[in-house]
Amino acid sequence: MGYVDLDKTAGYQRLAALEAARSTFDFASLLTAERVNQCQVPMAAGLRYSWAAKGVDTPVLEALEALAQEQELIGKYQAILAGEVMNPGEGRKVLHHLLRGQLGKPVIHQGKDIGAFYQQELERFSRFSDEVHAGTIRGSTGKAFTTVVQIGIGGSDLGPRALYLALEHWAAVAGKQRLLGKFISNVDPDDASQIAASVSLEETIFVLVSKSGTTQETLANELFIKAKLHQAGLDPRKHLVAVTSETSPLAHNPAYLDSFYIDDFIGGRYSSTSGVGGVILSLAFGKEVFAALLAGAHEADTLALEPDIGKNAALLDALIGIWERNFQDYPYTAILPYSQALSRFPAHLQQLDMESNGKRVNRNGDFLAYATGPVVFGEPGTNGQHSFYQLLHQGTDVVPLQFVGFIESQRGEDVTVEGSLSQTKLKANLAAQIVAFAKGKADPHGNKVFLGGRPSSLIYGKQLTPEALGALLAHFENKVMFQGLVWNLNSFDQEGVQLGKVLTKQVLAAHGGTSGDPALDAYSALLGL
Amino acid sequence: MGYVDLDKTAGYQRLAALEAARSTFDFASLLTAERVNQCQVPMAAGLRYSWAAKGVDTPVLEALEALAQEQELIGKYQAILAGEVMNPGEGRKVLHHLLRGQLGKPVIHQGKDIGAFYQQELERFSRFSDEVHAGTIRGSTGKAFTTVVQIGIGGSDLGPRALYLALEHWAAVAGKQRLLGKFISNVDPDDASQIAASVSLEETIFVLVSKSGTTQETLANELFIKAKLHQAGLDPRKHLVAVTSETSPLAHNPAYLDSFYIDDFIGGRYSSTSGVGGVILSLAFGKEVFAALLAGAHEADTLALEPDIGKNAALLDALIGIWERNFQDYPYTAILPYSQALSRFPAHLQQLDMESNGKRVNRNGDFLAYATGPVVFGEPGTNGQHSFYQLLHQGTDVVPLQFVGFIESQRGEDVTVEGSLSQTKLKANLAAQIVAFAKGKADPHGNKVFLGGRPSSLIYGKQLTPEALGALLAHFENKVMFQGLVWNLNSFDQEGVQLGKVLTKQVLAAHGGTSGDPALDAYSALLGL
Repeated sequence: MGYVDLDKTAGYQRLAALEAARSTFDFASLLTAERVNQCQVPMAAGLRYSWAAKGVDTPVLEALEALAQEQELIGKYQAILAGEVMNPGEGRKVLHHLLRGQLGKPVIHQGKDIGAFYQQELERFSRFSDEVHAGTIRGSTGKAFTTVVQIGIGGSDLGPRALYLALEHWAAVAGKQRLLGKFISNVDPDDASQIAASVSLEETIFVLVSKSGTTQETLANELFIKAKLHQAGLDPRKHLVAVTSETSPLAHNPAYLDSFYIDDFIGGRYSSTSGVGGVILSLAFGKEVFAALLAGAHEADTLALEPDIGKNAALLDALIGIWERNFQDYPYTAILPYSQALSRFPAHLQQLDMESNGKRVNRNGDFLAYATGPVVFGEPGTNGQHSFYQLLHQGTDVVPLQFVGFIESQRGEDVTVEGSLSQTKLKANLAAQIVAFAKGKADPHGNKVFLGGRPSSLIYGKQLTPEALGALLAHFENKVMFQGLVWNLNSFDQEGVQLGKVLTKQVLAAHGGTSGDPALDAYSALLGL
Repeated sequence: MGYVDLDKTAGYQRLAALEAARSTFDFASLLTAERVNQCQVPMAAGLRYSWAAKGVDTPVLEALEALAQEQELIGKYQAILAGEVMNPGEGRKVLHHLLRGQLGKPVIHQGKDIGAFYQQELERFSRFSDEVHAGTIRGSTGKAFTTVVQIGIGGSDLGPRALYLALEHWAAVAGKQRLLGKFISNVDPDDASQIAASVSLEETIFVLVSKSGTTQETLANELFIKAKLHQAGLDPRKHLVAVTSETSPLAHNPAYLDSFYIDDFIGGRYSSTSGVGGVILSLAFGKEVFAALLAGAHEADTLALEPDIGKNAALLDALIGIWERNFQDYPYTAILPYSQALSRFPAHLQQLDMESNGKRVNRNGDFLAYATGPVVFGEPGTNGQHSFYQLLHQGTDVVPLQFVGFIESQRGEDVTVEGSLSQTKLKANLAAQIVAFAKGKADPHGNKVFLGGRPSSLIYGKQLTPEALGALLAHFENKVMFQGLVWNLNSFDQEGVQLGKVLTKQVLAAHGGTSGDPALDAYSALLGL
């Protein structure tokens, strides 16, 4: 397999020449009904990816597909699946796809079948959740658990939280809500304090999630909660389970009711489909709901093997993003789900994308001369329409957009006002925004002119179910993976978080004395340290 | 007063020449303890603005201050306070400062003293909240209200929600929490459905907020809630109050327990200190808490009149932002509060900034040739550190940063782990990040190199109290105002939201038939409309 920087490829030259030769992309005439109907790719779980309103034409798409072949994207994805060391910075395999099912031969590491290990842990925490639901596992006063609180940060928080919120109301209506879910993440003591005050401790099970077992925030919050349990006369060993690696201090530790394991081949931001997301989601909604989510993700992973961009939405989405980032020079992307249930999904994608591809060196550590991962942000529609869409429509810069929407709501309750249901209004707004961004509007008054030419894609489906959510999650994971491969960088390490950790330890070790850096000491003094 | 586009000013040429002549700004040697201690500006409510880690030196600051004088920023702010028509697109005054107190002569409009009107409404809803707390106003079954739910979107949601969340835990500890607060915003029917299911309707008062009284989402959600109240055998007239303008269909309407008024001189995103935020905050925490918030905001408004940038944090913050946006070409800004209570404050600032200054025409409607408002995004620290900070430290682009932090937590509960309190760790992380972003770190391995040179500011104070929160809110309002004045645009209209509304109406009127735009019809068909 060849690993080549993007700007050393023939595809880069070809795409740069296409961009240079292109006149303005006239959305107003190009965005026909025919284009909308044709420019769609089927996704897993019945979702579809619509790219009609993206600023790409046949020559660009052909060049992008050729670039995908030149950069051997499908071959490299297969290498990931086969267990090659695709996180070279840390010398690790990248195996989150294996959490959802096997695509190829078993991955054996030091004599161990990793897929079987992941399956075994899935079965273990599925059984555990069954026992909690059956009441055979109870809190220290004998009361059944009614609430599950996850203690974790970053990938141990954002993904699981986004998925929990995405399914909470679907589950309530479907009769699947078993335990109420809550989350503690921030080292700010107010976070743990307010969550602890909001639950009945004797009916609460805490899921402590840290792969290394040394995450500063998570350990502090664990002790905070243990102190609370002690104060309430409860036995913490009956109220905590751990999700960690087998080599961590939390593993095989009698301080926990049980421990469930992942390994170094599951990156934090890719861990939602492991026990990191699976324990709380199974406890909250039952193991079947989590299994459905995995099935949707596995189907998406399977589709991502397809070399034809007309059949591989993750690949096409990735390549269009490369076009926008490296040839149209757009430094950001907005994620705009028209679904209140996806309120925190943009925050998860923000981590997934920015932590994976916010890198300026290639996989060998050489500096890159081209732009990599964009800034990702977003809020649900229609809320965003009444907030930052002003800039998206009429600002001085173009922000590429990614919409998500569903035909049906999750809860089914609705009201007709002025002749239409709220769900109908929601979808009408979504369709209207896509067209407004693309086509714009002329006006004699400058402040009422919409230039248009704001590109967007749309992922849509029937309803946000567990399967659809799994498909959506894996779509974005695979999109980010393909982009990292195009950029020839390592999407699976995060060295950028280290320096802050080192300096924090210096401040804490200084205990108000000197850390060795006078500026750091001066800031510490401002903050009363 | 002269209104001149930024690129026609002498200051623009001077700043562009400074940027062109400048070699790299060497933070590693420039960020000394002395600079940290000196580069601070006092703010209202005891807060301070620290700009030591911003990439500005004396020549740049002198040029920025001269630009402020050339663009007559203080004079134009005084014109806003005096009631001149500073929203020329809509022909309106801009009077949100007057909600917090009077700075100058009374503003008379068509014979009416507007300040007195705002004061009267403040007194009316303060009394109303007193009566709810005293139990003289109750729900239709005679039960006292325990919960207040705001129904509004955009400025009627994001600001009030951010403020509510910022004070909720402070109030719980201070014994000020009177009613629990919740919010319904999205037209997605799942939003209203799940909030309605989560409250005891007979003990809930709903605050319906729409200045025009015609906001599609808010009216749909109102009818949704009214239907729920009817189904529960409750009288909606005993459970709803309105915040609106006197000319709206909601005004003087017996369908509501009471109505409180604002006028067209209060823009949605600037309305948190009117009844839009004041009714729910007074009901939730008592009128004294809201009064304290107003006092903090008024103090900030007063300080913003100071022409010396060494004494006017909002002005200095605005000007540094201009330097970063127009001369260093950074297209985004991140807001990073090290306070879980400020979890949704970045979402409010995203609206405030992007909706105010995401414009490409000047106040006369002429197209501008320079960049205006940046993309604004952010999440609380330390959470963000485990998410998107990777890109901020090691991505290919520089993102200017705005930190916020407090010496003390709100709830006071804490735990010592490995020799330090969580609050201490929180602050140590904050200090460490500022220095890490500024100074970076060399390393023989490319993936462990931190280039540094990432500029940041810090707003800090003793604790996030109502006064401090009001000061923080007004600081950013005034910062955005000054930037809009530098750019010579109208920060107070939002024409960019109109086209989507028009096309949405076309889709809804088509009722599955044709809207007149085949692409719009095709998208509608995809979404099952």
